[in-house]
Amino acid sequence: VPHSPALAFLGNSLDRCANHRTDQEWLGRLLKQPSTRHIHMNGDRTVIVDEKLQTFQQANSAEMVLLGVDGNGHGWFASSTASEENLLDLRSLAVAGVLPPGELAILAQARSLLHWHARHGFCANCGAQTEMRDAGYRRHCGACATEHFPRTDPVIIIAVRRGSRMLLGRQSAWPEGMYSTLAGFMEPGETIEEAARREVFEEAGVRVGEIKFHSNQPWPFPSSLMIGLIGEALTDDIVIDPKELETARWFEEAEVRSMLEGKHVQGLKTPLPMAIAHHLIRACLRANPGEVD
Amino acid sequence: VPHSPALAFLGNSLDRCANHRTDQEWLGRLLKQPSTRHIHMNGDRTVIVDEKLQTFQQANSAEMVLLGVDGNGHGWFASSTASEENLLDLRSLAVAGVLPPGELAILAQARSLLHWHARHGFCANCGAQTEMRDAGYRRHCGACATEHFPRTDPVIIIAVRRGSRMLLGRQSAWPEGMYSTLAGFMEPGETIEEAARREVFEEAGVRVGEIKFHSNQPWPFPSSLMIGLIGEALTDDIVIDPKELETARWFEEAEVRSMLEGKHVQGLKTPLPMAIAHHLIRACLRANPGEVD
Repeated sequence: VPHSPALAFLGNSLDRCANHRTDQEWLGRLLKQPSTRHIHMNGDRTVIVDEKLQTFQQANSAEMVLLGVDGNGHGWFASSTASEENLLDLRSLAVAGVLPPGELAILAQARSLLHWHARHGFCANCGAQTEMRDAGYRRHCGACATEHFPRTDPVIIIAVRRGSRMLLGRQSAWPEGMYSTLAGFMEPGETIEEAARREVFEEAGVRVGEIKFHSNQPWPFPSSLMIGLIGEALTDDIVIDPKELETARWFEEAEVRSMLEGKHVQGLKTPLPMAIAHHLIRACLRANPGEVD
Repeated sequence: VPHSPALAFLGNSLDRCANHRTDQEWLGRLLKQPSTRHIHMNGDRTVIVDEKLQTFQQANSAEMVLLGVDGNGHGWFASSTASEENLLDLRSLAVAGVLPPGELAILAQARSLLHWHARHGFCANCGAQTEMRDAGYRRHCGACATEHFPRTDPVIIIAVRRGSRMLLGRQSAWPEGMYSTLAGFMEPGETIEEAARREVFEEAGVRVGEIKFHSNQPWPFPSSLMIGLIGEALTDDIVIDPKELETARWFEEAEVRSMLEGKHVQGLKTPLPMAIAHHLIRACLRANPGEVD
């Protein structure tokens, strides 16, 4: 049964068993259970859920990540594979809504962790090779003893409004006609609000005043935390940074509503409900009369 | 004039000038201006603000980070120094409240960036040496062409309450009598709420239901983003993880109030106002009668 395409990657219900990550005996017992689930991933966009223990153990003896234990007591592990067979794209899975939301969230966890290991085989401090530890939640450098931990990159994403209008932009790489909220990586030494004001000014030249926290979402491409905000613009004029955006403009509510409903006369559209941008845009309309839902 | 010791590291008002980070001519002109400010830092805990351009340029020709341009058009740069002279501790500066808040925030930005460069001289992907680019906001690997960006680690910190009581814990390394809210690094594939529920259960065995976002703070030791939350406990029994906490217990409001006021009979205390924990604890009391302020 297909599930409704809500905000993706939420609802990971695994017990991550942090206390057991260094317990080799416990990990070994869990791995041997026939009910244990194994996730194989190949690169950036492919994934498969496989219950064949033998294949998995042979292929991945070196670097296997513990995801956790589910409500039925079944273990979940993940590892990278070079196989090209039977692989499904994680974004497509999220869009299609064919998996239970909690399972999609487990795939997000696996994707971010495996990507981090794939790109962090060496010590950033001294250049020596590192080794996986703590069932995948740490890498250890034997040469300089530095410990490395998986990274999660906070990204602000903000629906900016001014009266009955909303600021949306588009990047040239996006599907034709797609407009969305502005977003960007947080930098060192910023609050969430400071990062959001900086990004909107850098990308569109608009000053933002009051900002409210709306929602958040893990985004496993490869390891972002999307922090969803709604902000009130203080200025009107838009000056885009062409390195960041192809264009940006103010949209009246009625136009945004037609985009959300797929009825825009020029075919302009908003991101799908799997993405937090969709929900931020919808929330802005909700605060005004004539809401969509 | 000493400033009031509010939540530290907020209010960085520099224009970070992201569009100019690759413009060597612009950077060179800014560096040569006599009004340009230079921050020198030595390791984890020391800092000095120095306006002597010559010293700075000689000592730090290799890796100098652009912080931004202030409201007076003065540039701000930072670099690491091996000097031990005239250095002040960043935490002490924050506690003392001797700097304008916005200036303390600039030091936080410098501290996080310089620490990242100090520990990321090599490519995590291939082990080769990397080079600073974009005036300090990127490192480039010439061997495998991987680009590396400064990391900011999201940390949840949560005041958990149940009726008129609040859950506070302490780590053995903390000053005697100090109790605080629970906190922990977010992991890959988690929402903020999922991370908070996991941390509180891991550290104290308490289940948390509803969670509200309260505030946030950059914490430059070395590069955390503290995400401050208030949560409602669903269970009472506390089972601490002795690897994380020395102890944790429920505190009645009146006791917390005496701790905030420095009047606790056994001398128990809360973190100082420079830290977000103080404000989360205070906010919990505010939501109840008999508030402190």
